[in-house]
Amino acid sequence: MSQIYDRVALIGLGLIASSMFWAMKRAGLAREVTGYARSEKSRETARRIGLCDRVCDTAREAVEGADLVVLCVPVGAMGAVAEEIASVLKPGATVSDVGSVKRGVIRAVQPHIPDGVHFVPAHPLAGTEHSGPESGFAELFDNRWCLLVPVEGSDPDAIARLRALWEGMGSNVDEMDADHHDLVLAVTSHAPHLIAYTMVGVADDLRRVTDSEVIKYSAAGFRDFTRIAASDPTMWRDVFLSNKDATLEILGRFTEELFALQRAIRTGDGDHLFDYFTRTRAIRRGIIDAGQDTDAPDFGRGKASS
Amino acid sequence: MSQIYDRVALIGLGLIASSMFWAMKRAGLAREVTGYARSEKSRETARRIGLCDRVCDTAREAVEGADLVVLCVPVGAMGAVAEEIASVLKPGATVSDVGSVKRGVIRAVQPHIPDGVHFVPAHPLAGTEHSGPESGFAELFDNRWCLLVPVEGSDPDAIARLRALWEGMGSNVDEMDADHHDLVLAVTSHAPHLIAYTMVGVADDLRRVTDSEVIKYSAAGFRDFTRIAASDPTMWRDVFLSNKDATLEILGRFTEELFALQRAIRTGDGDHLFDYFTRTRAIRRGIIDAGQDTDAPDFGRGKASS
Repeated sequence: MSQIYDRVALIGLGLIASSMFWAMKRAGLAREVTGYARSEKSRETARRIGLCDRVCDTAREAVEGADLVVLCVPVGAMGAVAEEIASVLKPGATVSDVGSVKRGVIRAVQPHIPDGVHFVPAHPLAGTEHSGPESGFAELFDNRWCLLVPVEGSDPDAIARLRALWEGMGSNVDEMDADHHDLVLAVTSHAPHLIAYTMVGVADDLRRVTDSEVIKYSAAGFRDFTRIAASDPTMWRDVFLSNKDATLEILGRFTEELFALQRAIRTGDGDHLFDYFTRTRAIRRGIIDAGQDTDAPDFGRGKASS
Repeated sequence: MSQIYDRVALIGLGLIASSMFWAMKRAGLAREVTGYARSEKSRETARRIGLCDRVCDTAREAVEGADLVVLCVPVGAMGAVAEEIASVLKPGATVSDVGSVKRGVIRAVQPHIPDGVHFVPAHPLAGTEHSGPESGFAELFDNRWCLLVPVEGSDPDAIARLRALWEGMGSNVDEMDADHHDLVLAVTSHAPHLIAYTMVGVADDLRRVTDSEVIKYSAAGFRDFTRIAASDPTMWRDVFLSNKDATLEILGRFTEELFALQRAIRTGDGDHLFDYFTRTRAIRRGIIDAGQDTDAPDFGRGKASS
C-alpha cells in the first residue's frame, strides 16, 4: 500500500482515532500522523504507548499543515472543535469526521469550513465496548463498512482520496446521503443501543433480583446487552440527542411491535410467537452470509472462556 | 473424573443434549448414554455423527434401565414425554430436565413421576444461537452455571449425584427455588430475548431501510440482537408461554424505563441520558469480574473475521 496523505491530524484520541493510527501505520498510508486529545491524561497515555508520531497540546497545533484532519470527538463536540481549528486549516486540506450521526455533524461543522478546504463526512461502522487511547487496534476496520456522506459540493478528488485511505485501513466503502444514513443507523445501531441500556438499567433496579444474581447468572441474552450498554456514555448521549427524530421513530415502531408480542404472551397465542421468531431467524442468516459476523457458536465464547 | 451413573438417557437431541453427551464422554461420567429424538432425521444424524452410544426409536426404549433420564425437549413438550415414559422408569432412577422455565416444567412433569423415582429439575445457563444434534460441543458448560431446582421431597442423594454430574461436565452448580429461578431468568434471559426478537422484526418490517442495507450495515448493537433472535423458535415460544407472569412483569418495567429515556431524548435532557448510561457500564464490569464473559473487545470478533 502506498502513502495517501503526507500529514494526517487526529482530533480526539479514543477507540476510533487510535485504531485509525495503527491501521494507517500498518499500511504506510501517511508520512506523519499528529494527534490531540482534550484531556492531559489521554495525551500522556498516547505519548507513553507511541500513539501518533507527534502528540500536540492544542488542536490547532495538531492541525497546522495537515492534509487531512479527522474529527474523532463525540458528536456534540464537533462544532466547537471545527470552529477552533478553522483558521489554521491548510488550503486544499480535507476535513472529515467519524461521527455516528451525519446530519447533525454536517449542521454543526460545515459553517466553519473555510473556502478552499474540503469537507467529507464519514462514519466507520466498527467499534467495541471499550474506549480511550489504549483501546485501539489496527484490525478494527478490516472487512467493516465505512460510509462516506459527501455534502453538496464535496470535491470528487477529495472523496476519492478519503475512500482510498479507508480502503487502505481495511474497510469496504460506500456512499450515502446524510438523512438516509441517519435512518439506517437508527435501526441498526442507535435504537438497539438504547434498548440495551434500558434493559440493563431495569435489571439493576430490581431489588428482588439481587445484583450479584443478575451478574452471576447472566446467560446469553442479557450478557450481550450488557456489552452494548457498556459503551461510552458521552458518545451515546450525543448520538441520541443528534439523531433524535429517526431514533424516536424507530422506538415508536419498536414499542408497537413489543406490545403485540406481549399481548400474544398474555393471551397464549403460541402461533404468533412462533411465526415471529421464525421470521427473525432468516435475517441473522443474511448477516452471516454477508460476512458481517461469524457463524461460530456464541462467538466462540464457550471455548474462549473455558 | 470417575463414572457417576451407569446409564443415562437423553430425551431430545438438540444443542443441550448433544453437548451433554460430549461433555459426559470427555470426563467418563456414564458407562452408556442412550438417546432419542422425535424426528427421524435427527436420529439419523445422531447415528451418523456418533452422538450417543445407542440411539433408540422410542423414548421408552431409551429410558428402560436408565439410572438418569434427562428431558431435553422444549418446555411445552415436557409433560407429554414424562407421561409417555413414566411406566418404564426404573425404581430408584432420577428424572431431570434442562428447561429454561422451572415452575411450569414442575407442574407438567411431577404428576407423572412414579413413587420411588426421584425428580430433580435443572437448568444449565449455557447455549448458543444454534440448535439441533450437530450443534453440541463438550465445552459448552465449562465455567457456566447450572441451577438445580429441587422440588419438595427431592432425595438429597439424588441431588448430590446430579450435582456431581454437572460439575463433571464443567459447570458451577447452585440450588434455587422454582419461582425465584423464573424471575431471575425473566430478567437475565427471557425479557432480553423477546426484546431482541422485537427489534429484529422491526428492522425487517421497515420498507424504507431495505433488508440488504440492514444486513450490510449491521454494526455492533443490531448484530448482537440478530444472534439472540436466531435462537430456536419452538423453545422460545414455550419459554414465554410457560414463564408468562415474570416475563410480563419485567417487560412492564422495561417499557416504563424506555419511555423515560425516550422522553429524555425528546426533551433534550442529556444529563439524564449520561447518568443512565454511566450506571449501566458498571454492571458490565461486574459480569466480566464474575468470569461470566470475556473482556476481549467485541468478543475478538474484529480479528476473527478479518
